[in-house]
Amino acid sequence: MSHATPGIPERVHLDNGGRAPWHPLARQAFEQALADGWADPRRLHAEGRRAARLLDGAREAIAAVLGARTQEVRFTPSHTASLHTAVASAAAARRRAGSTVVVSAVERAAVLHAASLASRGAEPAGLPAGPVPVDRLGRVDVDAMVAAVRAPGVALAALQHANGEVGTVQPVEAVHDAARTAGVPLLVDAGASVGHVAVPDTWDLLAADPADWGGPAGVGVLAVRQRVRTTLVGPEDEDPWAPGGVSVPLAFAAAVALQAVESDRVAQEARRRALVERVRAEVSRIPDVEVVGDPDDRLPHVATFSFLYVDGEALVTELDRLGFAVGSGSACTASTLEPSHVLAAMGVLTHGNVRIALDRSTTADEVDRFCAVLPGAVSRVREMLGVGGL
Amino acid sequence: MSHATPGIPERVHLDNGGRAPWHPLARQAFEQALADGWADPRRLHAEGRRAARLLDGAREAIAAVLGARTQEVRFTPSHTASLHTAVASAAAARRRAGSTVVVSAVERAAVLHAASLASRGAEPAGLPAGPVPVDRLGRVDVDAMVAAVRAPGVALAALQHANGEVGTVQPVEAVHDAARTAGVPLLVDAGASVGHVAVPDTWDLLAADPADWGGPAGVGVLAVRQRVRTTLVGPEDEDPWAPGGVSVPLAFAAAVALQAVESDRVAQEARRRALVERVRAEVSRIPDVEVVGDPDDRLPHVATFSFLYVDGEALVTELDRLGFAVGSGSACTASTLEPSHVLAAMGVLTHGNVRIALDRSTTADEVDRFCAVLPGAVSRVREMLGVGGL
Repeated sequence: MSHATPGIPERVHLDNGGRAPWHPLARQAFEQALADGWADPRRLHAEGRRAARLLDGAREAIAAVLGARTQEVRFTPSHTASLHTAVASAAAARRRAGSTVVVSAVERAAVLHAASLASRGAEPAGLPAGPVPVDRLGRVDVDAMVAAVRAPGVALAALQHANGEVGTVQPVEAVHDAARTAGVPLLVDAGASVGHVAVPDTWDLLAADPADWGGPAGVGVLAVRQRVRTTLVGPEDEDPWAPGGVSVPLAFAAAVALQAVESDRVAQEARRRALVERVRAEVSRIPDVEVVGDPDDRLPHVATFSFLYVDGEALVTELDRLGFAVGSGSACTASTLEPSHVLAAMGVLTHGNVRIALDRSTTADEVDRFCAVLPGAVSRVREMLGVGGL
Repeated sequence: MSHATPGIPERVHLDNGGRAPWHPLARQAFEQALADGWADPRRLHAEGRRAARLLDGAREAIAAVLGARTQEVRFTPSHTASLHTAVASAAAARRRAGSTVVVSAVERAAVLHAASLASRGAEPAGLPAGPVPVDRLGRVDVDAMVAAVRAPGVALAALQHANGEVGTVQPVEAVHDAARTAGVPLLVDAGASVGHVAVPDTWDLLAADPADWGGPAGVGVLAVRQRVRTTLVGPEDEDPWAPGGVSVPLAFAAAVALQAVESDRVAQEARRRALVERVRAEVSRIPDVEVVGDPDDRLPHVATFSFLYVDGEALVTELDRLGFAVGSGSACTASTLEPSHVLAAMGVLTHGNVRIALDRSTTADEVDRFCAVLPGAVSRVREMLGVGGL
């Protein structure tokens, strides 16, 4: 998305993973829901019932896209909250089967943390401790994951649909097959993929992120198949999945945004995949770069690179100065200066990393302009580090 | 707030406690923040920094109203989340001092539940177990609360500023004096009072509810004095007070709404207090009614009544049919059919209860119309129960 200001070149925002601009229809939906659905949906009067109907409609629309039943869809305060609640509540319900939560090494921090909390004190005999490793493309070792799921003492398995940092799609179907046979529920984190690619129905719990598909932040989605048992471990509340209740306008805007992006998803998928392929090809010509993630089986809108002799944060800052907003797995955010655990698990360079995620509104011209400035930006950062001649 | 539809009398919404319609300026602020602050405020690029500035501005504006420092104000996913996090984290930080959390019997369910979780296993010697009782007006027994705070093994005390169900203001200053002397931090739940009356500065942690003052649901406010230690017990996250991050537009809208309602708070307080006094006087003339809560030291916009020989839910439904939305402590919500623990603790009738909470937009005419229809509605509900002649 770009904003024109006289005399200043339009900025190009290429950091649309996890927090994309709202889809225009989401804004309209929010306004409508604010007028009709501001009341507490748990109240008995007409205003409360109207808000409850909007919330039910939102749940139904999202369920249809996810291939779930309406009553299987819950709203939570955020995608992070969805993942924590999913792991904690599904693991708690299977305490008698065991306490191990099998995860891949490239799951989000929230999943890894929740899994380690749930597994605390568990010592599965004869199994390697820790998350299941991935290869250099970021794909989980299927044999190792299947073996881990089949081991005794497993409460839950978690595998993302696709990795939001590097784009690699995971073999969710194969792992779900093994999990189903073993009677272990599988949590699929589809926070980076819903709205961008088709969602598999091979899951028992599925978390999706409205802020990633052009809906609002401040609301998360968690679908739980009816057959899956959960034991809620959070605060006692009328709405234990979102203690204190969910914002009806946010939930409604999230649902409308998802319907909107689904309506032209296939076309957008092809368009953005072609742009990403162009970027990956252009960037591979820069010296000392690794183009990261699976070249084919990947999200259509995400591209990630690691540059040797470059500080990722410095490169983000230099690109920002030139009018381009990008993300970095070297220092994903201002407060976390640790390198990405995803890149580390893949065994690729963690220090000179840059990620772009294209919005539906990103144009070919914007991508071309990015490709034109990137080599110079990399050179300048290398010169600042005194490695320009390398 | 009322909506005109041709041929249908305008509805009167008198259930504005905890989930009031948005202040018009909050809607404008939300639109602005959506345009300028949709990005992730934790990112390094210009869009991220702009979102971070909006969030800092929101924090600063709220801090000014609460009498706090900017860095003392945190955003959370909801008021319920604020209360849970406040109790859990403040109690955890004082584990060496003890694990008892002293609470009044009329705190919100979230406080009571979090306190019982934190106190689990604690057995303070020589103290009566359970929450500190209140009198028939809903005011906590100050001597009992002070004694409880001074007892050994107390980690935290919690006392609401005012009770949102019955309106009674609590003796927060006296309890804070005792708590300070005892070295016990005091959590003040100001979720029903901020934006309606002046907030005392006698607190160590203070929770406030944007959805109650004309801001959005989906965001909560928790202020923690710098001197108060907290140990976060929730998910590991960059933003441990709102795992997954807060919605910047919601936080900004909350702050703008608070500034807006503060700008004419004193006038609105006097205006609504006069309307509430009129309602309380009119209702007291209906046979077999108890007008609930302190007659003087109370919230200006809340009025609560308990009718003998009346089912609260039936009365809410009858008033809804007549075009009036009200709340009920008999069955606060559709899903909770248990009578209010607040009314039970006060020793007043729990079954025929109705609560009204006036919005800033509520007119004198709307209040008059409510007073005109209420006696007939009560009679009809009594007749349905076969007690019309009593």
